[in-house]
Amino acid sequence: MSKTLKDYFEHGIAAYAQDLREGKVTAVAAVKACLARIEAYDGKLGAFMVVDGERALKAAKAIDALLASGVDLGPLMGVPIGVKDIIALDGLPITNGSKMKSEHLTGPEGTIMQRLKAAGCIPIGKTKTVEFALGATGVNEARGTPWNPWDANTHRIPGGSSSGSAVATAAGLCGFALGTDTGGSVRIPACFTGLFGHKTTVGLWPTDGVFPLSPTLDSIGPLTRNAGDAALIHAVITGQDIPMPARLEGLRLGRPTNYFFEDLDDQVAGTVESAIVALSAAGVEIVDIEIPEAAERARLFPAIVPPELIARLTPDGFNKARPKMDPVTADRAAHGLEVSAVEHLAAQYRRVELERIADARFAGLDGWISPTCPFVPMPVENLKHPEEAARGSLSSRNTQPANIFRLCSSSLPIHQFGAALPVGLQLMCPNGDDARLLSISMAMESVLGAGKAPDMSGFRK
Amino acid sequence: MSKTLKDYFEHGIAAYAQDLREGKVTAVAAVKACLARIEAYDGKLGAFMVVDGERALKAAKAIDALLASGVDLGPLMGVPIGVKDIIALDGLPITNGSKMKSEHLTGPEGTIMQRLKAAGCIPIGKTKTVEFALGATGVNEARGTPWNPWDANTHRIPGGSSSGSAVATAAGLCGFALGTDTGGSVRIPACFTGLFGHKTTVGLWPTDGVFPLSPTLDSIGPLTRNAGDAALIHAVITGQDIPMPARLEGLRLGRPTNYFFEDLDDQVAGTVESAIVALSAAGVEIVDIEIPEAAERARLFPAIVPPELIARLTPDGFNKARPKMDPVTADRAAHGLEVSAVEHLAAQYRRVELERIADARFAGLDGWISPTCPFVPMPVENLKHPEEAARGSLSSRNTQPANIFRLCSSSLPIHQFGAALPVGLQLMCPNGDDARLLSISMAMESVLGAGKAPDMSGFRK
Repeated sequence: MSKTLKDYFEHGIAAYAQDLREGKVTAVAAVKACLARIEAYDGKLGAFMVVDGERALKAAKAIDALLASGVDLGPLMGVPIGVKDIIALDGLPITNGSKMKSEHLTGPEGTIMQRLKAAGCIPIGKTKTVEFALGATGVNEARGTPWNPWDANTHRIPGGSSSGSAVATAAGLCGFALGTDTGGSVRIPACFTGLFGHKTTVGLWPTDGVFPLSPTLDSIGPLTRNAGDAALIHAVITGQDIPMPARLEGLRLGRPTNYFFEDLDDQVAGTVESAIVALSAAGVEIVDIEIPEAAERARLFPAIVPPELIARLTPDGFNKARPKMDPVTADRAAHGLEVSAVEHLAAQYRRVELERIADARFAGLDGWISPTCPFVPMPVENLKHPEEAARGSLSSRNTQPANIFRLCSSSLPIHQFGAALPVGLQLMCPNGDDARLLSISMAMESVLGAGKAPDMSGFRK
Repeated sequence: MSKTLKDYFEHGIAAYAQDLREGKVTAVAAVKACLARIEAYDGKLGAFMVVDGERALKAAKAIDALLASGVDLGPLMGVPIGVKDIIALDGLPITNGSKMKSEHLTGPEGTIMQRLKAAGCIPIGKTKTVEFALGATGVNEARGTPWNPWDANTHRIPGGSSSGSAVATAAGLCGFALGTDTGGSVRIPACFTGLFGHKTTVGLWPTDGVFPLSPTLDSIGPLTRNAGDAALIHAVITGQDIPMPARLEGLRLGRPTNYFFEDLDDQVAGTVESAIVALSAAGVEIVDIEIPEAAERARLFPAIVPPELIARLTPDGFNKARPKMDPVTADRAAHGLEVSAVEHLAAQYRRVELERIADARFAGLDGWISPTCPFVPMPVENLKHPEEAARGSLSSRNTQPANIFRLCSSSLPIHQFGAALPVGLQLMCPNGDDARLLSISMAMESVLGAGKAPDMSGFRK
């Protein structure tokens, strides 16, 4: 491998941060390495919508000078990042994954980007997204479907909607990337690309400057190489202490006996089982629980999210844009036109009830675990067949419950337990317990190991 | 007038509180006086749905004993109160103004009642309400329309939906009463019965234990003899200091040049003008302003409130109950079945925009003033004629803007400026500025005088 293709973030942010302060690397070198990898791989991967190398290098030079002058902005200083293209970034265009003009709905750069930039992060570009973030496989016929970096021969789904952010991070094109999660859009692509993903509690990270798909369910979250990186990011965004790994011995994790473990493909079933055995061996108590309300997500999501989106786009705007939209996303959104206000509100009232019910089901437990997705990433081509498309739509089956229950949740990569393609283990924790979620995730990672990076040689231009 | 018909609250709570502590009156005497007035007048007035004299007397005895033992619960101690029959009160049935069974939607007694009881208030009964609080004239064919105490000869509308609370307070059947205001339901009956009404900022007073007509717009508020009483109640509920009268000199109040002053009947136009002249003479600066967005209430209300109500009742429940419902309320609610989710959400998004716009229009002003209602209370009979019914539906024209703008607001009685029937002057202040609203209201009252009580002799059984 040539020197320019070095991945400074293979082992996460903390290792880079130490090297940066020891003078072993500079922000300029890190940005140059990311740009070189983008140049080499992103032609085929298609993770980025737009890259602004010039500005990133300018920022990197300033960051290096700042650090040299004795100003340390903390653990994210000098980290090149990817930004999902539904999050506004001043100076770069925004498409929200669509050909429809919609930047006025996203508004100007918001709090999250300003906090990350103030902490020394260096945005290198906007990453592709499912159109208006409404979709879980990662497919976007309007703006392109990024290529899953785990298979250079077959174009497999990257997971969505934060598809480009996942692919860019997994392929080492940036240190980490921002995604958003309304029904699983951080966790599903994390799962399918072998990353760690953190779906934050709704309201904990400010969503100004983010395209409003669903004010009810939208949350932001990072896609990272490991749980420790997510803990650093969370601490920077919230201004709280950096979460530390929890003690494994005595942890009690609920394992749903219904719903979440149904209809898994063999690779997922076996890998998840091995991971759970490893956790048990490390002292984690696995407790059978039932969560009968999980299945309600299938009824509540279509009554909540599509009308919230159409109301933003306006029915007129949507109908005009529809011919140029991704057809699957357009159909899903169009359902929003058919929902009555009473159906929508009844779903909202039920969702509020479910928050309380779910919270009670955590009694005596530190969290719930499940497979993140029921299968490994399938070829994009397969989705043209109705049966496979129906299966593809189950990508969000296991993630949406955490959204309607208003939990925080993470996905840990576990393909290192023997799967040929990425598999994710989902952890769900009560509303607002994000620091605890990250502590438990780090503890689990200490047993399960962090995800391995994919071999990128097949993507070389 | 016989001794038993004494009204201990004619001059408000503070005067009573002083008499109570000086031993000139007891809580038992006050409750007995209220019960005697109810006995004498409420047959015709129909303000109360149910009265629990026995329990009130028991509570009054305990309160007197407590005070005698040296425990002073503060300014509301020993005040007999009326409670709108959409607010749960343990031990008494709740109808929510309907023949449809709906007490499960209101839930058990909530925070507000518990705080008032802990402060020594003595509930004497539940007051009548428009069915599900959805209506402004006060008419309820299902459970009865209270009689406006200002005209013993003609059954005039009391205003709604807190009709019974207004009539009970105006007629001296209680010290004050609780109402709720979703589109004017505290201010309109206050206006029509010559009382002070305080529509609190949404969210400031907890609404648990209150029938959820519209989670978006519901607020609670008291109907009182004067602004000072409302200030005492607000201090008790919020635990904040008692608001003191503002300085009149230098106050700047906006007077809308559009919308609010259109199409007033002569009595209202003349009385409001006289009140404004009096305020000016006292040093208040009256500033012309335009509020072009006020008219949007006519479009936003039907898209927000009826579907929120039907979603609570469920469409099935509503359709079954409809034959026994007040026909006007039922028609208004039924519109909720026709609203699409996208229309509802577009109205919600617009409402959020309007909050910001309205807030900006307060720049340099302490508040806005307007007539509370465009006319004096009309005979109930008149509403059978379509033209008068249409005019009746304008009862909430001037109050709903404060709801959609998310302001706090009050209505001050000003019939003392020469009207034969009650007229109200509305004050609107920015979101959350309730203490300031009450301070300004008290200052205005010092110039305008408090409302006079109606002559009840014509109601005597």
